[in-house]
Amino acid sequence: MFRPKDTKERAIHRLRIAKGHLEKVIKMTEADEYCIDIIHQSQAVQKALKEVDNLVLEQHLSCCTEVDIRNGKSEKAIKEIMEVFDKKH
Amino acid sequence: MFRPKDTKERAIHRLRIAKGHLEKVIKMTEADEYCIDIIHQSQAVQKALKEVDNLVLEQHLSCCTEVDIRNGKSEKAIKEIMEVFDKKH
Amino acid sequence: MFRPKDTKERAIHRLRIAKGHLEKVIKMTEADEYCIDIIHQSQAVQKALKEVDNLVLEQHLSCCTEVDIRNGKSEKAIKEIMEVFDKKH
Amino acid sequence: MFRPKDTKERAIHRLRIAKGHLEKVIKMTEADEYCIDIIHQSQAVQKALKEVDNLVLEQHLSCCTEVDIRNGKSEKAIKEIMEVFDKKH
Repeated sequence: MFRPKDTKERAIHRLRIAKGHLEKVIKMTEADEYCIDIIHQSQAVQKALKEVDNLVLEQHLSCCTEVDIRNGKSEKAIKEIMEVFDKKH
Repeated sequence: MFRPKDTKERAIHRLRIAKGHLEKVIKMTEADEYCIDIIHQSQAVQKALKEVDNLVLEQHLSCCTEVDIRNGKSEKAIKEIMEVFDKKH
Repeated sequence: MFRPKDTKERAIHRLRIAKGHLEKVIKMTEADEYCIDIIHQSQAVQKALKEVDNLVLEQHLSCCTEVDIRNGKSEKAIKEIMEVFDKKH
Repeated sequence: MFRPKDTKERAIHRLRIAKGHLEKVIKMTEADEYCIDIIHQSQAVQKALKEVDNLVLEQHLSCCTEVDIRNGKSEKAIKEIMEVFDKKH
């Protein structure tokens, strides 16, 4: 749930760029391009998605988590953050 | 450069699925869905891309790297693998 | 700053085990053991440290962050979490 | 199995520094230092170990893997690299 419109717009903008790059990965693979170049392009998509994750998480912490903690739902809030942290690579 | 058609087909198939999931991340963001769910979906896309990277790298090692080494181009081959390894998260 | 003694003890216990494994990495390297085995052992140390990080972060969220947010220091609290998240691999 | 003495010495040197930093993580935890500082210190140890892994892997590729491939043991060589790559975070 995004509060500031700005963050949401930025996230969507970056996700669309990432999608464009992923489409390029597909095309490169179809065109038998050099494996190493394909992997680098794929790693760039992953890096871009991680940056969006950061944006969304920061947003989450500054609205949802704060509200949860003020409303006595710390346990649920912490569990959610830990799950995201744990899956991060 | 893919040799076995099978690996290429599998890579493309998985990349298309990843693209579908990335499109879902965009829709979830546009629809103001819960931040944590968005991040999980994005992390799933990253995980899928990593699996494709593995597939492509394995393919690369078993064709290109082997040929490079046999042709005395070990240094270039190693440099490429290290760059991919270094960027991996 | 650890509140429950238990978490602190568990963290120290795991860190000492990780230290033992790191000492083994050093010995393996000194003894010219197989590169791949050395890397696996080193990766195991990193995995163990990540698990301690999770333990410490969870502890941090459930005491410090909560207190910070209740005391109007959300911004500082969020910045700290994001820094840890950003450096995580 | 390290060939150039230099790489081995460098790896051992860095591992010892990493061990020193890990000992500091333990002391910081025992001394109830600030959670976030403990995690940053632990993340620095992990980063240092990753750098040693790179050093060792590069060494491995330029000796063992090359020899394996020249001796027709490509499959085993590739499997080992993929395992290391897969476990890397």
